[in-house]
This record gives sequence, structure tokens and C-alpha cells, in this order.
Amino acid sequence: MLTVNDLLAQVQVLNSLTDLEKSVPVFALAALDKAQTGQLTFLASPKYRRQLADTCASVVLVKAADQAASPVNCVALVVADPYLAYARLSHLFDTGPIADGNQAVTAQIDPSARVAQGATIGAYAVLGKGVKVGQGAVIGAHCVIDDFAAIGAQTRLQARVTVAHHCTLGDHCLVQSGTVIGSNGFGYAPTATGWQAIAQLGRVVIGDRVEIGANCTIDRGAIEDTRIESDVIIDNLVHIAHNVHIGARTALAGQVGIAGSTRMGAGCSAGGQAGFTGHIAVADNSHFTGQAMVTKGTTEGGLYSSGIPAQASKDWRKLVARVRQLETTMARLDALEKLIKETE
Amino acid sequence: MLTVNDLLAQVQVLNSLTDLEKSVPVFALAALDKAQTGQLTFLASPKYRRQLADTCASVVLVKAADQAASPVNCVALVVADPYLAYARLSHLFDTGPIADGNQAVTAQIDPSARVAQGATIGAYAVLGKGVKVGQGAVIGAHCVIDDFAAIGAQTRLQARVTVAHHCTLGDHCLVQSGTVIGSNGFGYAPTATGWQAIAQLGRVVIGDRVEIGANCTIDRGAIEDTRIESDVIIDNLVHIAHNVHIGARTALAGQVGIAGSTRMGAGCSAGGQAGFTGHIAVADNSHFTGQAMVTKGTTEGGLYSSGIPAQASKDWRKLVARVRQLETTMARLDALEKLIKETE
Amino acid sequence: MLTVNDLLAQVQVLNSLTDLEKSVPVFALAALDKAQTGQLTFLASPKYRRQLADTCASVVLVKAADQAASPVNCVALVVADPYLAYARLSHLFDTGPIADGNQAVTAQIDPSARVAQGATIGAYAVLGKGVKVGQGAVIGAHCVIDDFAAIGAQTRLQARVTVAHHCTLGDHCLVQSGTVIGSNGFGYAPTATGWQAIAQLGRVVIGDRVEIGANCTIDRGAIEDTRIESDVIIDNLVHIAHNVHIGARTALAGQVGIAGSTRMGAGCSAGGQAGFTGHIAVADNSHFTGQAMVTKGTTEGGLYSSGIPAQASKDWRKLVARVRQLETTMARLDALEKLIKETE
Repeated sequence: MLTVNDLLAQVQVLNSLTDLEKSVPVFALAALDKAQTGQLTFLASPKYRRQLADTCASVVLVKAADQAASPVNCVALVVADPYLAYARLSHLFDTGPIADGNQAVTAQIDPSARVAQGATIGAYAVLGKGVKVGQGAVIGAHCVIDDFAAIGAQTRLQARVTVAHHCTLGDHCLVQSGTVIGSNGFGYAPTATGWQAIAQLGRVVIGDRVEIGANCTIDRGAIEDTRIESDVIIDNLVHIAHNVHIGARTALAGQVGIAGSTRMGAGCSAGGQAGFTGHIAVADNSHFTGQAMVTKGTTEGGLYSSGIPAQASKDWRKLVARVRQLETTMARLDALEKLIKETE
Repeated sequence: MLTVNDLLAQVQVLNSLTDLEKSVPVFALAALDKAQTGQLTFLASPKYRRQLADTCASVVLVKAADQAASPVNCVALVVADPYLAYARLSHLFDTGPIADGNQAVTAQIDPSARVAQGATIGAYAVLGKGVKVGQGAVIGAHCVIDDFAAIGAQTRLQARVTVAHHCTLGDHCLVQSGTVIGSNGFGYAPTATGWQAIAQLGRVVIGDRVEIGANCTIDRGAIEDTRIESDVIIDNLVHIAHNVHIGARTALAGQVGIAGSTRMGAGCSAGGQAGFTGHIAVADNSHFTGQAMVTKGTTEGGLYSSGIPAQASKDWRKLVARVRQLETTMARLDALEKLIKETE
Repeated sequence: MLTVNDLLAQVQVLNSLTDLEKSVPVFALAALDKAQTGQLTFLASPKYRRQLADTCASVVLVKAADQAASPVNCVALVVADPYLAYARLSHLFDTGPIADGNQAVTAQIDPSARVAQGATIGAYAVLGKGVKVGQGAVIGAHCVIDDFAAIGAQTRLQARVTVAHHCTLGDHCLVQSGTVIGSNGFGYAPTATGWQAIAQLGRVVIGDRVEIGANCTIDRGAIEDTRIESDVIIDNLVHIAHNVHIGARTALAGQVGIAGSTRMGAGCSAGGQAGFTGHIAVADNSHFTGQAMVTKGTTEGGLYSSGIPAQASKDWRKLVARVRQLETTMARLDALEKLIKETE
């Protein structure tokens, strides 16, 4: 059982606490309006402020300004950023499997692979020639790590991840189940009868602290490498084509697609299902809303969007008709203007 | 070889048949216009009615109104709903592998896992600590079922499915190959230098008779659970983010994406590639056409749409230009109205 | 170490070379502006022509017209199609794993499966009853090939591919990691309480030289087969529903989705995230730009598009408002026209 004292070791708390407060037990995390005795909660957004007084949580993470409004029987931990503090502390309550630092006897590890001591290799994992796995890394069950790929220290691959030959991941990364890193880029030369595949000779090179969701695909470069800089976070089912470069700290939501050779700057974000044309350059700090159809690069940061939101289909049908009539509508407006001008 | 008599055991037939008719052999299913002797077909939609008289099928499922129009040499089975009857009977002709109720010797099953008798565990499947597998369930080859996950009775997982720790599936579900259930939700708190991942402490909780396609991803909840109610059907490559709640009987087509904390009602449907913003509530019986960009919840059922359908690119280019000019077009209209008003 | 002479064996070079030129060593491929001594490059597009004079490559593939402009110290290989020649030669520089023609001892191959001599079966692969694997084929680690599926000669499956029962792939195909071929189509009949699944009795039938990316899903047909003709190329995360027919040489980019029973002609292409409604017929040589929303078939080839490209969100918000006002805008225009007409 954790106590408030254990939380203090993980986050910087700005108010002083009594020994009694430090000894309060905490066994779980919950939302402000649902937390019960023994639970930790947090007030991260002003819009939930009115829930604070009524919380039944034993401990709450708050900004200094909200300390006074916390209930008397709830230990208020004053922190600079309650959401960040919650994020840090959440890991204390994680009940997921803990890597045991062992290599499964059923893992097939090429004799030339170099697995650091303390790295965990899951059941039936396959590690090819010259593969390197860093200290404390975790290779999940059924992962396939092809020849000469390198997995950095403390990097975790969940079950059923493919890392193709020569690709490299930095330290402290996470790759979720089903993701394929280093698939062949979609490069073909047309022939008289079909297509000639182009060997994809580049790698995927991934920085540190990159997190990649489930069932994503990240293609290796055609000649040079596909690059994902440090601190990038990527959601599920995202497609990153060959030669793409993703700048540091950029966040890509679910089902985003980025076509070949596009460069995303640092600190960018893309909402779910946004799509990026190939061979464009997106400036640092450019943000795109969901389903954005990005056909041109940006030269400065900012928020970009496209699409007409969904509405009742009968209204939508009229709208489509009206849009389709725009050419004639404008001709009518032209004619009217001309007529008026002549009349004057 | 099946006969008409075997079909009668599966569906309620409303007309009476002679012994001769009951003995007609049926070896396959086919469409009305392609069926041959020995084949079963069905008339489900009035638009195919004119094909009925010419079908060469040996047996046809029809509504009462269509019985008279069936060919003389074809046994007409009158049913309330021919399409549903076809659906039920289709399984008689399935040639897929039949689960043998055995546990593969190469499966790695933790001693603390509880696998019901008669459940099938495929080759190289990995079952973690405390995993429960119900009666008659089928775990495909290469599935990875993490610690404390629970698979209900008669639920089938095809090859290469991941079920992460503590997630639960009800009875009579189907999960197709490559799908990941219980991946981490995309939850991060921004820091000065990047992102702090938030441990995803919730589970995925799936009801009964839920069917999920291939290569989908369903994220576990951040604090509470991601929930998919009973009788939901989900196509391939669908992304369901953390804390989402999908109501009973809802149908999601291929590549649909639902962002975090969104609640879909019961009896809803979404066409392919439709995308739902996070934190919205969709009313029961709301239906969305393909590629719909759903940025707001709905308060009542109905059909919702967005998007201008594709057209010849040269016309599309003009249309985009016209839409882009709307601001000035409307200013011109304003000016014209003002001018006319002054003239009057 | 390769020399120019080795390249001549792979592509038809139209100019004559000296023995000295033929002996020039080539160890890698690089872009025109980055190539160094010992590297091969190519000039495929006129827009890079000005880089030719300054290239430091040892060898360059050019059209006849560009031969004279090549640097003196660089061997110019004159070819009919430099891009195609580059594509062919790229494979000389591929450093990926080479199939060893062996069957892994950990592969589980049903005794009734017929694996041609020289085919490679990777670690932990599972081959069901009656599976056929052709000469020189490569089945990657962790692939699951269900009963009676057939893999043609020289066809390569990367790691972790599923091929469901009775599906067939032709010769010289490539299927990348994580892809599922033969998943059940999304076919259900509504019932009073939910859905009755329809057994998907068709197969997936794939021609020769078809290349399919990573984490795709290709559903088996409901009654007849889903068919992909020869020389089709498919990028990552593409969804092809049941009963779809894709004509020869068609190219589908990442995250494209094609709904059930749609027929794509030959020589078509679809940009990333394009979506096709079910039950439509697309004419040969129809091309669709990315994110196209294809709700109707085409009767002739050509380029088709939809969508308004992304723009700064503040402008986009105005545009959405203007589009939403179109109904009233047109009513105002009607009124104005009427008024003018009466005035005249």
C-alpha cells in the first residue's frame, strides 16, 4: 500500500504536510467526481473546479490557487502542474506485467546478437544476426527483430512488433503491439507491363523517448533514412512513408498518414486521420485538426484545418447541391452586376 | 452432402414441403443469377426479383410474396427474412478450420492460467498469469494474452491477436487476426522538453457477441475502462481510443476512428473512414456516412454526413476556387443588395 | 565490390564503354546531389538536370540527351528510362536478409502441406493442412498460413503475415509484415436483437507480381472470391473489403479503403486515404487524388478528386460559415434577380 509519502518522492510538492497527512494511504487513481477514500485525484482544468469541494478523494493534486478550496478531509498536494504530476504518479498504480530481465527459453536469438544484461526477451521472439538490444530493454513475446537492427536501452517493444533489418531505435522508447518498423517504402518504377519495385536501401532511425502506438507502419527510406526525432509521440494505425522526417516532440494522433519524403517540423501535431501529401515541408509548431487534407507545406507555425463538419444528411445533400452550383451561381452574380452597372 | 431437410433444422420455413423436396441435395451457396443445380440461393432485395424466374438454383429462400414466382424446378423455402435465413444457413457451407478443442504443445500457458476444458489453444500462443479462457473458446496460433485477461465462453480469437493485461471479452465474440485489444491510450502530459506518458490504468471491457475485424486497435482506458457493449460489430483497421464507450448493436465499418472519451449510443453505425472527435456524445440510432467528419455529438438519432463527393479533377479545381472565393462573392452580393436598396 | 560491368548485366546500356569505365567500382546508390566517389546515381526528372554537372558520383544513369552534360570524371550510362534502370539496379545494393532455402526447425508444418524444395520457412511459422508453398517462396517468421492456402513460386511473405484458409497468392508476390489476407468480410444480417454473422465462403485470389504493404487487411469474399489481379501494388494499412475486384496494374497508396463488391478497373491509382463506396465500378485508368471520397463509379478513365485543402484555421472557420450560408445566399440572389427583372 502506498502512502502520500511515496507520492512525494515522485513529484515536487510545494506545500508542507504533516506527518499524519504523509501517512495517508493511497491505493488507486480516480477522476475528481468519482474518487473515494483511499484514492488520489487531480484538478487539472478550471472547468472541473466546482467538483473540487465535493470530492471524496483522500488526496488531490492542485495548483496553489485551488488549495484553499480543497475539502478539509482531503490532503491537497500543491504542485506547479497537476496534470503533469498526475501523469508522473499514474505509473505507481500501473498493474501491467513487469519485465523480469530474463531471456525466454523459446526466444530464438542469433548467436551474433548482443543482448545487454538485464534486457528481457519474450517468448518466441526472434532476433536476427548482429541485433543489439540495450540495457533494460524489453522485447515482447513474438517480436521479430531482423538482422542488424538496434534497440536502445530501456526501450520497450510490446508483443508482436516487427523491426526490420538495420533499423535503430533510441533509448526509452515504447513501441506497441503489432507495429511494423522498417517496412519497404512504396517505391516502384512503371514498366511496359506493370511495376519494377525499387529496393528500399535506407533505414528507419528513431530517436530517444519516442512512443509509437499499435499497428502502425513506418517505412524504411528508399536511399536515405526515414527519421523520427526524439520525444515524438505517435498514436495507433499511423502510416509514415519512406524518407519522411518527423521533428522532435511532434504528436500524431490515430490513423494519420504522411506520404513519402514529407518533412514535419518540431513541436507539430496532427489530429486523427489527417493526411499529408508527399514531398512537402511543414514548419515547426504547425498544428492540424483531425481529417485535415494537407496538400501544401506551411512556412510558419499555427493552426490549420479543412473539411466541413458532418450535419443531418438532408441538409448535407442540399449543401452539396449548392456547392456544385457555385459555378453557375457566380455567373448569375456576374450577370447581375453587369446589368446593374449598365442600368446605372 | 446436405439436403433441404438439413436446412429446415436451422431456419423456420413457413411453407410445407414434400418428402421429395426435403430430400433435394444442397452442396453450396450462390447468388441468384449464378446458382446452379445443387445450390442454395436467396431473394433478399426486390431489385433482384426479375432474376428469380431464371435461377438455376435447386433451392431458393424467398418471402411469401415471391413464392409463386419461383421456378418450378426449384424448391422455394418461404421464410420471414430471406437475408437472415441465408446468413444462418451460410455457416453450413463454411470450409474454414474447425477448432479441435486441444491445447497445442507449443502454446506457452502460465500455470496460473485457467483454461476451460474443450477450449482450443493454437500453436505458439502465449497466455500470461491468471488468464481465463472460457468453455469452447478458441485462441488462435500466435495470440498473446497478457496477465489476467479473460476470454469468454465460445469466443474465438483468430491468429496473431493481442489481448493486453486485465482486458475482458464476453461470450461468443470473434476477434480477427492482427487486432490489438488493450493497447495504451494516447495520453501524455506536456513537459518542458517533451511528453510525460500517463499510465493507462483502465481496461478494455467487451460484451457478448461482439465481432471485431482484422488489425484493429482498441485502447485501454486511462483511469476507467474503454467499453464495448454487446452485439457491436466492428470492421477492419478501426481505431477506438481510450475511454470510448460503444453502445450495444452499433456497427463500425472499415478504418473508422473514434477519439478518446467519446460515447457512441446504441444502434448506431458509421461508414468507412468516418472520424469522431474526442469527448462527444452520439445519440442512439445515429448513422454516419463514410468519411463523415464528426466534430460534434448528436442529440437525436438520424442520418448524418459530410464531404463533397469526388468529381473530375478539372471541375474539382474550379469548385475549390469558387469555394475559396465565397468570402468575396458574398461581399459582392451584399454590395449589390445595398445598391439596389438605395436605388429603389 | 561491384563494378560498372556488373551493372551492365542488369540493364540495357545504349552507349559503349571503355574497359576502364567498365572497371569503375560502385559500392552504393545515392541521390544526384549527395552522391560521392564510388556511388551510382541517376537523372530521372528534368527538374534535377542542373545538379548533373556538379555530381560527385562515379556513375550516373542518364537519357541520351543528358549524356553530354555529365561530368567528365563520372561514367554516364545511357539508358532508355533512368528511373527504371535505377529501380532494377537498386536491388544490387540491398542489404536485407537473404532467404536460406531452409525450413526452420521451429516451424510447425502440417504433414499434409506441400513445401517445394528451396522454399524458406521462417521460425515459428505455422502451416496448416494441405497448404502449398511454391519453389523459392519465402514464408517469414511467425507467419500463419491456414488450411489449404497456396503461396506461389518466388512469393515472399515477411514476418507475421496471416493467410487464411483456401486463399491463394500467385508467383513473385510480396506481402509485408502484419498483413492479413482472407479475414472475414463484414457481412451481417440484422436480427431483432443484434446481428447474425454471414459465413464468408469465398477466398482471396491474388495474381502474380502483386505487392502488398504492411498491416493491410484483405477480406475473403462472401460467396464468390475477392480478386486482386496481377501486377497490382498496394501500400500499407490498406483495407480491401469482401468481393472487391482490383484490376491489373492498379496502385493503391497508404490507408486507402475499398468497400464491399466494388470493382476497380486496370491501371487505376488511388492516393493515400482515398475511400471507395461499396458496389461501384471504376473504369480502367481512373486515378484518384488523396482522401478522395468516391461515392460513384466512373465510366471513363481520368483524374478524379475531392476535398478542400487545409488552410489556416481562422480562414477555414469563415469558409465553413460561408458554405453553411449558401442556402440563404442563393435565396438572396434569387430575390435580387427577381427584383431586377420586375424593375426592368
